[in-house]
Parts: sequence; C-alpha cells; structure tokens
Amino acid sequence: MSFSPLVDQLLESLRVLPGVGPKTAQRMALHLLEREREGGRRLSAALSQAIEQVGYCQRCRTLTEETLCSVCQDPRRDETSLCVVESPADMLAIEQAGGYRGQYFVLHGHLSPLDGIGPDDIGLDQLEARLAEEPVGEIILATNPTVEGEATAHYIAEHLVGREIKISRLAYGVPMGGELEYVDGGTLSRAFQGRQPFSRD
Amino acid sequence: MSFSPLVDQLLESLRVLPGVGPKTAQRMALHLLEREREGGRRLSAALSQAIEQVGYCQRCRTLTEETLCSVCQDPRRDETSLCVVESPADMLAIEQAGGYRGQYFVLHGHLSPLDGIGPDDIGLDQLEARLAEEPVGEIILATNPTVEGEATAHYIAEHLVGREIKISRLAYGVPMGGELEYVDGGTLSRAFQGRQPFSRD
Repeated sequence: MSFSPLVDQLLESLRVLPGVGPKTAQRMALHLLEREREGGRRLSAALSQAIEQVGYCQRCRTLTEETLCSVCQDPRRDETSLCVVESPADMLAIEQAGGYRGQYFVLHGHLSPLDGIGPDDIGLDQLEARLAEEPVGEIILATNPTVEGEATAHYIAEHLVGREIKISRLAYGVPMGGELEYVDGGTLSRAFQGRQPFSRD
Repeated sequence: MSFSPLVDQLLESLRVLPGVGPKTAQRMALHLLEREREGGRRLSAALSQAIEQVGYCQRCRTLTEETLCSVCQDPRRDETSLCVVESPADMLAIEQAGGYRGQYFVLHGHLSPLDGIGPDDIGLDQLEARLAEEPVGEIILATNPTVEGEATAHYIAEHLVGREIKISRLAYGVPMGGELEYVDGGTLSRAFQGRQPFSRD
C-alpha cells in the first residue's frame, strides 16, 4: 500500500531536495498537507517564481532576477578589486563576514577535466573579457581550499601571468575559535608557513 | 547582504518544511536553482496539485484525492475489524508491516484538553456514526504509546462500553531485534505483565 497517487507524486518530488530521503519526504508531505497548506501554497509559488525568473548577473554571474545583482549595481563598491568564488553561497558568506568592499566573479564550479569541465565551463572567457574592460588591480582567488579549488586557483593565476594585476589567495591557517589539538596537520603546517609578525595593536 | 528578493522569498518559504533551518534552506534553494531547475519545477507543480486536490477519505479520514481511499474502496478488506490510528503515517506503517486486513479510522491527532482539542476535533462523532452503520465487531486502538495516545485510547474505550464490540489495544512489549539491556524500564515491565505462553510452532 502507498498513499494516493497525488501524495505519492509529492513524496517523489520532494526527494529532489538535497539530504531528503523517503522518510523525511513523507514527514514533509504529511506536515504540509495536514498542518501547513498555506505555507505549502506559498512554497510552491515562491519555487516556481524563482525558477522561472532567477537567472545570473551579467557581470558577476551570481543568482539574481535582475540584469545586474545588488553588489554590481552598488556604485560605492571598489572597482579595482575582484574576488573569484566557486558559488553564490561562497559570495554570500564573504559578504556576511563583512570587510570586503570589492567586486565578485562566480565560477559556478571548479575545473574538473575528468568530468569534462574546462575553463570555458566555469566562465574564464567571461572573466578575461571583464578584465579587459574594467580597471581591476587585484584578483583575490577565493576558491575552496580543496584539491579542485586549489587547481582552479592555480590555473587562473597561471593564465593571468604577464598582466599588470596583483593576484592573491585567501590566507590558510587555523580557524578562529578552534583548538589547536583538533586542527589537522595540513592546516597546521600551512599556518606555520604563513606565520605573521606579532602585532601589538 | 542577502540574495535577490526572489531567492530570499524562496529561502523563507522553504523554512515551512519541518526540520529546515536557514542553512538547510539556503542549501536547498541553491541546489534547486543551480542544478535542479527541472526537479524544482516538478516539485512546485506536485505541491500545488496535492494541496489543492488532496482531501480526506469520507470514511476513514486518511489523505486521498478521491471520495474514498484505496483501502476503503477495496472490497476484499474485512469489514468487521476497525483500527483507530492517530495519523495517515501510522496507517501507512501498519499497511506496510502487512498482516492487518481490516478497516481504519484516522483521528488526525489525539485528545488534548489543554490545547482545546476535544472528542469532536478528532472525529469521534464521525467514528460513532460509522459504528452505527457498519458491522464492526472489533476495534483495535492503535494510538501512539504516549501519554496523550493512551489517554485518547482510554477515552474511546470508555465511550464504547456497553456496545457489542470487542475493544483491543496493540500489545506492549520489547521491540524485535533490540537488546534487552537497552530497553527502558516501562517497556520491560509492560512486557512482563503481557507475557504469553511459549509457543513451539
């Protein structure tokens, strides 16, 4: 036995969400149908509206329903600094951390030759076009500190050699608030290599 | 900074799902927009269709888009046995366990005077009307083994005293496959009280 066809179809469709298996899908579907029809209606509308209307910013490629995202539209942002990230979520994390006031470029992934993802698939042609047009003085490579993210950062850096652009990478080191005992060896040795003069400010 | 208005609205709407906080909502929204627009479209459609069309079975009150659910429509089911459960999910669990071939009645909750949930709110008037019309010989009270579920079962049982109906309750005891060491005291003492003659079959 199963539920009725429409409920089964809802269960099946909910499985498209990351981390949602059969049991969670069932709990979600019953919750929506038994207690939250109004919220479910809003979710259905918001989902279809976002899917139909949200595209990518023409300049930085983050998600937005407008031609340019709010960061690219903001005239107070520093035009000379460009931060390259793998995903819109990374861009949001940097914005929420505060402190950075420059521009962004979203790759939507990383280089992965085995999966057939080459430079053009992560928009490096578009990045190049942007560098030709804009007065960028520094590129901050903020790809993930993973093997693929590192490789992508290296590729981009190699590619820009010879231009009058400063290229930097996010600092590696021990995360704030952690305990040294639990920091992995790779991170620790990077933190030693990247040690800074002690500041008494 | 946040995402664009439509993405923010999607994030907010996803929070209606049980167990979904801000971080999970963000992961879900970005997953749908970046990699699963087709699945998201299907989810939106399935959700709105289910919410508009799925109602309750007129006889057993489970979720269905038809007048009667598949169990109530099935002429091979035993009409003399009626199992009372708290939710459609409980009914599904019993059906998936197999073995029971009778009818159901779904309360959609349990008695809870403090929350203003009385007998009519869990459909006991409807249950009574059904008992007047159908040849029910046994009622199996399969409410949850919680304080509220027990109280509800007691209330229903008290209410039916004097009728020619056998009233039973699911057996309490140790769950299959568990280890006695980890079974709680209440369950263990119930298992002792309810001990059965050893069968050599």
